Amino acid sequence: MYKDRVREVLERVSRGEAGVDEALRELARFPFEDLGFAKPDHHRRLRHGLPEVVLCEGKLPEHVPPIVRSLLREGSGFVLLTRVREEMAERLRAEFPGSRYHPQARLMVVGEMPEGEGIGLVVVASGGSADHGVAEEARVTAELMGAKVAPLYDVGVAGVHRLFAHREALEGARAAVVVAGMEGALASLVAGVASCPVIAVPTSTGYGASFGGLAALLAMLNSCAPGVAVVNIDNGFGAGFLAALINRLGEGEEG
Amino acid sequence: MYKDRVREVLERVSRGEAGVDEALRELARFPFEDLGFAKPDHHRRLRHGLPEVVLCEGKLPEHVPPIVRSLLREGSGFVLLTRVREEMAERLRAEFPGSRYHPQARLMVVGEMPEGEGIGLVVVASGGSADHGVAEEARVTAELMGAKVAPLYDVGVAGVHRLFAHREALEGARAAVVVAGMEGALASLVAGVASCPVIAVPTSTGYGASFGGLAALLAMLNSCAPGVAVVNIDNGFGAGFLAALINRLGEGEEG
Amino acid sequence: MYKDRVREVLERVSRGEAGVDEALRELARFPFEDLGFAKPDHHRRLRHGLPEVVLCEGKLPEHVPPIVRSLLREGSGFVLLTRVREEMAERLRAEFPGSRYHPQARLMVVGEMPEGEGIGLVVVASGGSADHGVAEEARVTAELMGAKVAPLYDVGVAGVHRLFAHREALEGARAAVVVAGMEGALASLVAGVASCPVIAVPTSTGYGASFGGLAALLAMLNSCAPGVAVVNIDNGFGAGFLAALINRLGEGEEG
Amino acid sequence: MYKDRVREVLERVSRGEAGVDEALRELARFPFEDLGFAKPDHHRRLRHGLPEVVLCEGKLPEHVPPIVRSLLREGSGFVLLTRVREEMAERLRAEFPGSRYHPQARLMVVGEMPEGEGIGLVVVASGGSADHGVAEEARVTAELMGAKVAPLYDVGVAGVHRLFAHREALEGARAAVVVAGMEGALASLVAGVASCPVIAVPTSTGYGASFGGLAALLAMLNSCAPGVAVVNIDNGFGAGFLAALINRLGEGEEG
Amino acid sequence: MYKDRVREVLERVSRGEAGVDEALRELARFPFEDLGFAKPDHHRRLRHGLPEVVLCEGKLPEHVPPIVRSLLREGSGFVLLTRVREEMAERLRAEFPGSRYHPQARLMVVGEMPEGEGIGLVVVASGGSADHGVAEEARVTAELMGAKVAPLYDVGVAGVHRLFAHREALEGARAAVVVAGMEGALASLVAGVASCPVIAVPTSTGYGASFGGLAALLAMLNSCAPGVAVVNIDNGFGAGFLAALINRLGEGEEG
Amino acid sequence: MYKDRVREVLERVSRGEAGVDEALRELARFPFEDLGFAKPDHHRRLRHGLPEVVLCEGKLPEHVPPIVRSLLREGSGFVLLTRVREEMAERLRAEFPGSRYHPQARLMVVGEMPEGEGIGLVVVASGGSADHGVAEEARVTAELMGAKVAPLYDVGVAGVHRLFAHREALEGARAAVVVAGMEGALASLVAGVASCPVIAVPTSTGYGASFGGLAALLAMLNSCAPGVAVVNIDNGFGAGFLAALINRLGEGEEG
Amino acid sequence: MYKDRVREVLERVSRGEAGVDEALRELARFPFEDLGFAKPDHHRRLRHGLPEVVLCEGKLPEHVPPIVRSLLREGSGFVLLTRVREEMAERLRAEFPGSRYHPQARLMVVGEMPEGEGIGLVVVASGGSADHGVAEEARVTAELMGAKVAPLYDVGVAGVHRLFAHREALEGARAAVVVAGMEGALASLVAGVASCPVIAVPTSTGYGASFGGLAALLAMLNSCAPGVAVVNIDNGFGAGFLAALINRLGEGEEG
Amino acid sequence: MYKDRVREVLERVSRGEAGVDEALRELARFPFEDLGFAKPDHHRRLRHGLPEVVLCEGKLPEHVPPIVRSLLREGSGFVLLTRVREEMAERLRAEFPGSRYHPQARLMVVGEMPEGEGIGLVVVASGGSADHGVAEEARVTAELMGAKVAPLYDVGVAGVHRLFAHREALEGARAAVVVAGMEGALASLVAGVASCPVIAVPTSTGYGASFGGLAALLAMLNSCAPGVAVVNIDNGFGAGFLAALINRLGEGEEG
Repeated sequence: MYKDRVREVLERVSRGEAGVDEALRELARFPFEDLGFAKPDHHRRLRHGLPEVVLCEGKLPEHVPPIVRSLLREGSGFVLLTRVREEMAERLRAEFPGSRYHPQARLMVVGEMPEGEGIGLVVVASGGSADHGVAEEARVTAELMGAKVAPLYDVGVAGVHRLFAHREALEGARAAVVVAGMEGALASLVAGVASCPVIAVPTSTGYGASFGGLAALLAMLNSCAPGVAVVNIDNGFGAGFLAALINRLGEGEEG
Repeated sequence: MYKDRVREVLERVSRGEAGVDEALRELARFPFEDLGFAKPDHHRRLRHGLPEVVLCEGKLPEHVPPIVRSLLREGSGFVLLTRVREEMAERLRAEFPGSRYHPQARLMVVGEMPEGEGIGLVVVASGGSADHGVAEEARVTAELMGAKVAPLYDVGVAGVHRLFAHREALEGARAAVVVAGMEGALASLVAGVASCPVIAVPTSTGYGASFGGLAALLAMLNSCAPGVAVVNIDNGFGAGFLAALINRLGEGEEG
Repeated sequence: MYKDRVREVLERVSRGEAGVDEALRELARFPFEDLGFAKPDHHRRLRHGLPEVVLCEGKLPEHVPPIVRSLLREGSGFVLLTRVREEMAERLRAEFPGSRYHPQARLMVVGEMPEGEGIGLVVVASGGSADHGVAEEARVTAELMGAKVAPLYDVGVAGVHRLFAHREALEGARAAVVVAGMEGALASLVAGVASCPVIAVPTSTGYGASFGGLAALLAMLNSCAPGVAVVNIDNGFGAGFLAALINRLGEGEEG
Repeated sequence: MYKDRVREVLERVSRGEAGVDEALRELARFPFEDLGFAKPDHHRRLRHGLPEVVLCEGKLPEHVPPIVRSLLREGSGFVLLTRVREEMAERLRAEFPGSRYHPQARLMVVGEMPEGEGIGLVVVASGGSADHGVAEEARVTAELMGAKVAPLYDVGVAGVHRLFAHREALEGARAAVVVAGMEGALASLVAGVASCPVIAVPTSTGYGASFGGLAALLAMLNSCAPGVAVVNIDNGFGAGFLAALINRLGEGEEG
Repeated sequence: MYKDRVREVLERVSRGEAGVDEALRELARFPFEDLGFAKPDHHRRLRHGLPEVVLCEGKLPEHVPPIVRSLLREGSGFVLLTRVREEMAERLRAEFPGSRYHPQARLMVVGEMPEGEGIGLVVVASGGSADHGVAEEARVTAELMGAKVAPLYDVGVAGVHRLFAHREALEGARAAVVVAGMEGALASLVAGVASCPVIAVPTSTGYGASFGGLAALLAMLNSCAPGVAVVNIDNGFGAGFLAALINRLGEGEEG
Repeated sequence: MYKDRVREVLERVSRGEAGVDEALRELARFPFEDLGFAKPDHHRRLRHGLPEVVLCEGKLPEHVPPIVRSLLREGSGFVLLTRVREEMAERLRAEFPGSRYHPQARLMVVGEMPEGEGIGLVVVASGGSADHGVAEEARVTAELMGAKVAPLYDVGVAGVHRLFAHREALEGARAAVVVAGMEGALASLVAGVASCPVIAVPTSTGYGASFGGLAALLAMLNSCAPGVAVVNIDNGFGAGFLAALINRLGEGEEG
Repeated sequence: MYKDRVREVLERVSRGEAGVDEALRELARFPFEDLGFAKPDHHRRLRHGLPEVVLCEGKLPEHVPPIVRSLLREGSGFVLLTRVREEMAERLRAEFPGSRYHPQARLMVVGEMPEGEGIGLVVVASGGSADHGVAEEARVTAELMGAKVAPLYDVGVAGVHRLFAHREALEGARAAVVVAGMEGALASLVAGVASCPVIAVPTSTGYGASFGGLAALLAMLNSCAPGVAVVNIDNGFGAGFLAALINRLGEGEEG
Repeated sequence: MYKDRVREVLERVSRGEAGVDEALRELARFPFEDLGFAKPDHHRRLRHGLPEVVLCEGKLPEHVPPIVRSLLREGSGFVLLTRVREEMAERLRAEFPGSRYHPQARLMVVGEMPEGEGIGLVVVASGGSADHGVAEEARVTAELMGAKVAPLYDVGVAGVHRLFAHREALEGARAAVVVAGMEGALASLVAGVASCPVIAVPTSTGYGASFGGLAALLAMLNSCAPGVAVVNIDNGFGAGFLAALINRLGEGEEG
């Protein structure tokens, strides 16, 4: 695409339709506007089926609305905000009527959502009810990116039979997100049953020697079952995003 | 499948073709032989396109050949051995003539390899020449699992232009493996350019405050670019395996 | 037991008393209802003498009562809730009149408690008054599981003579729980005097280089006295549970 | 017992059979010879069924034989040496003919072993063949202490069906030792199936983010299955010792 | 002393003045009442010049007054309470009129203080004004134990000249306490100038990579100047106690 | 300068204008008043163009004003206070009318500021809006020390094109401050584009495995681009100070 | 420069001297060949006065010579190799006669070195003789980049007087490199005396709680003296490089 | 002393016996030669009763002899070398005939040793035979500094009765060094029995979760017995030095 636009400029110069200075000005903006990596926002939305994402944690409340408005103005159909606490959600709902807030997932969506049934199948499994928030963050993210999601909650080691009860879902899935704190063993278990890629999310659920999720993180990184990769502690968004990306590949070439 | 086989037994009992004791004996083997998770070895090979994998690190040299022989006997077309040091490789080559050893990747393949061109495209990018071994481990593993692989080595921050030079490869890839030690920044860079899932492999390359790969591991887990997940330090096999799994999905449903 | 029930189904089919579809439906629930590991809840209560345990930390207050009610409905005589803070305790007391709350142990019991004298002897020793809460959590748990418990509090290094004063209790115990923060030396001391298994519980009591209980944890793991094993920091419940389990073995075969 | 011996001395004084000075000399040795904790060696052997244990790691080779000889002289029927490397074993075998060396377990036994069938049942489960050495250390230790041991090796997550295949062994065991490196998930799995106390041994098996066994250690400490306690990394001896101690309790009071 | 009391009992028995049972009862209390380690409280006060110390952090407010009253009743002239927050101090002042509270040091003294000039000389040096609290804890403790103390505050690296200005104080001191956070370099500096023992107290003052005092702790442990030993992070009491103990030695034999 | 003053004293003695005692008294103050390192405050201001800096974190609010007043009295034209929270700022503004507070940077300036355009060029780049506070701390500090500063905010990996858009600023800079949390990759990127010294500031922005800034800190220390050095986590002041120091060198000898 | 070259191409097209396809081919190489960041190698040498640097640690010996040859072919006047062990040095000396090896610094230089006196002044201070290797690595690197270097070795805390003896050197320096292990206090001391930027290099010198240089690293990051920044443990090259970069700025604009 | 020498110079100037230039030259050397801190070597020997100490670990073998010779030349009666391995010891013995080497302590003494009985009493207690080397390092160091030392080895928790058996030694000691690895509990035990200052030395003895001595280090820092301070892991020299320093104070004022 870049080549086509450069060729067009050159041809106009060649035909005398454009002067050197004018062409120069136009090309000057290319290296960072058209290189492909230059405006990842728009490319990304087109390819990933997701608009810009705004991480709200650590941001001052007054900084968020201008960013959202600017993104909507630039053509993003909808904007996904992550790690939005209740107070900020209320403020944003006042500014952007029609936006939807998922309190457990701490996600907010502003703008027009894509319609339609989700495609493929992403399983989101979680170990205990304290992990629901992170699991929901993954689920909502994957759905926003067009995936059909089967939640499979509360399947810790003590409830391993429920895992086997859903063997069919796991066998049909194109990607699985496994959310677990404490000893994080669920990722290995799911990877032993499922044959799809498994994205493991350690959570900070636990106490003492869980060291804020470190125990689960290390356990998941050391999983003896192949086919597992890990995202940051409590990063439900990242796991949902990646699972949806993989899920789209299942649609065939150019996924 | 399980249901069909149970129904068949029940029908034979119902029709009087089978006695209760005979049916009982038959059913007794079901829970762990036919549950799907029970014999993952064979299922796994069929689905993942890879036979059993034997991690040789930590094993006594005399323990490996019997394991390999038993796997071949059970019908594995070929066996992949990981983390095979030169001495062990020589010993194994003597026992299994015709096996192939990849010294940099420390991988060995015993048995008949699948033929044919690889499918799809997996990019394996690495940061520095000290990371070649791990990158090769990922490359060979992915190829053994049927993927076409484009290696993209030596693209550290100092050579970031080469990354952009291969933009097309990155844009065409179904999955990317990024192997990097030291500060591990390459994963974020690749994820910024590519739109496919990125599997990051921190390596123990570095010294001092790299703490055996911890610095790269933490950096990759904290990547601010979505679409990245991380495997264990130096786990080239795991990354190659997962990338190939994702790559197969690109063939469409049931990838 | 599983075999008996399957035989019974098969016999009904064989006798024509049950159709194939009906039998299939019945068997379908077996793999995870009767495998032994499938419904650990009921087996566990029968064997361990303890009903389901609900960890309340990290759960939303509104999620707990439905879980408790469902467990009572499924036949659990009583339910043990751990890590219940005062606010949640009040809410639960309102919903479940007759339940009992142990504020220091942060434990709550809902339902009918087993009657009778405890069996055997479990010693619960603790180092300082700041460790009382965790020690109480162990004591109440062990008592709920039917053990007779001898608390032996405030026996730190400075009061080592009190330890020797209770030599008889220690010699008669079937299991000892040792709760200590700071340098965690008490576990080694008790293991030097007692001849029963010692379950050590590091606590987060301390400051500075205690690093939230890490110092006591490492010290206990490195105990040079054999017969010591360690549970998670502040995990009084886990230690009381395990000690009571060991204590029951003292009743003889099938303990 | 202490009281009886003091009473005897006092009575001899009272009857004029012993002078004050003589009684004083006799009593002088009491505080540390008869307090129970004073000569743990002999008491310990009587109660635990095990003589002194000598940890050889870190000791100079020439220091070990005198210690062993002194223990044998003091009446220890046999002496157990742990962490004995091949070189030291050869040296010791030359000095103590008839001693037996277990190379994988790195254990050595000098002196007359107790005869007879083991009692009760201890299961020793291990995850991978790289964990065999530590598992053997636990097995041999428990057997030396009089336990019947059922080894259950190579039951990692990938072979979880073998775990269920040995459900009966697990259900009949009085104690289970679980030896696992990498992500250490096996401990939770065994604790979910078995109803006996589980002693978990993290091993240093693994690489990268296993950090020498830290990952497995933390995972096991955070096990969400109750009934699990943990010993030091690679401490097969400690786990075998504790399991055998628990196993003896199953013989009934005074186990 | 122990011997004398036992001899006295024996002689009474020998003379028929005491029966065996009476003697037995009396001796029964010996092993832990008279062994020297048995009642460290009273011995300790006599030798160390300090009564019992009560660490209040982590204790429930209602638990402290009974402990204090019991200690006073047992003859402690005065009781030192450490880590007393304002709220607890007020409560205690109400219960024990005449007690004194040092808010910066978070110390409280209940009972009659020893009179008179302090002996010897202890220097308490601190790096910055954020370390004053811990330095005051050390100073007040040492003074309560009878030491004369020269405070030398605010002598960080930027004010190293003040250190040299007080060279004489440092040269005359029998012990020095050095309180510093951040990089903790002050301990090495003082040890380079002074020739007395130096007790270093790392503080949690700092941010980021000070990791709660870990940086200062490690720096002090690695001090290249001999004559330095370290106590726990923020442990002003421990350092003041030890410095006063050393200071008393300067009075000559039996310090 | 020291030599000159000593010579002057000696000459007065030599000429009989001063007695030995008087000369001695005068010289006595030299070692720590005139050695160059003795009063770094005044020298430092003259050389660094910055007066004393007061770190307010950890200080009691009532301690700060006397320190400021004393510094102003000693001739400091202006005083810089760092890590000043809103409450303290208000208190100080009341005491020192005319002082200026930078709330995001948490900096406060009391006294007369130097006038005039800044010299040279320092670039302050930051990764995300959550890092603004630390970046502002660096910017204001550098400006107070006389540097012209070009802020270059929000140039994370996702906005790498903006970095290239400001290539000219980066190429013209004498020093660059790079402020980034999470994976801290921005430092390597800037060092790859700019040719000036790069001062990297890891921030505590992030969650989970960022471990309070540790991930960014380690990544920056392991940067594979030469020309990078690192200050403490969140230490915007330190980076701005050092960058301004380097910037002054660009004015030529004696910078 | 980029603009000029693009203009030239456009003008040739405009004048009909070049066809569109030819121009397109030429421009196609621009984005990564001429963007400034595209070929940092050559730009870097021109600006930094240093050719390519090859880190040899972790590289296979046979991989290094081709890299060196390729760099020399591309016009690098000389190549600097870091972390070259004796064996590799010998091999390289055989391949590149005339190259020079600095065994303590583990540096090797291949090719023609720049001539002439060094400019400005960089002080390299080190704490103990075990730090010489890293200090030499810094010194040689800085000299290769054209700096005059004053080494100031063996100035630990015990020899702090030597530091003051070299006050003049420190006052005249444009940059100082401070190399120290153990507690790393030297960096703060030098920064208190010198007024130039200080680049601190923690070394792995030490044992026990130095944890491979972690203690010195943390201490240096927490230095309470402003004007200090830190590089990786043992990274003498990085510190020398940065100090030389700063030193060049002292030559005035465009340093 | 400094004052006296300056006065003497001034008086010679005043009397016309010295010119200003000559006086200036003489005084110029004062600030760092006579300030007290300037030549700590000689002062230190006089006060501490120990000459220079040379840490040999990390030094090249050829660097040590010149340092030793220079120290002997400067008047050190004898030189203590620490961490001397066998090979280096042999080399040094060849160069310095008459020197003595303590292989377990890894200490070497060159030159004339002070004669005579040691003064006071220092107890050196150690936990296990693997700690002997570090304990010996402490013992020899303390003896070289003139202390009478009572070694009390092999008094781990399992042999706690031996500790009480030596109660008298502990009660008579002026200082105690406690050397222990694994869980490091011995320090608290000794501090409970002894009333003198206790210097604790954690050792790297142990495996797994001892993490090279970290477990013992943290335990000792968290000792709940007052009167304990800690030196670096394996730092027997530092502990012996400090204990001897304290021991000398027991001789009375100016110890």
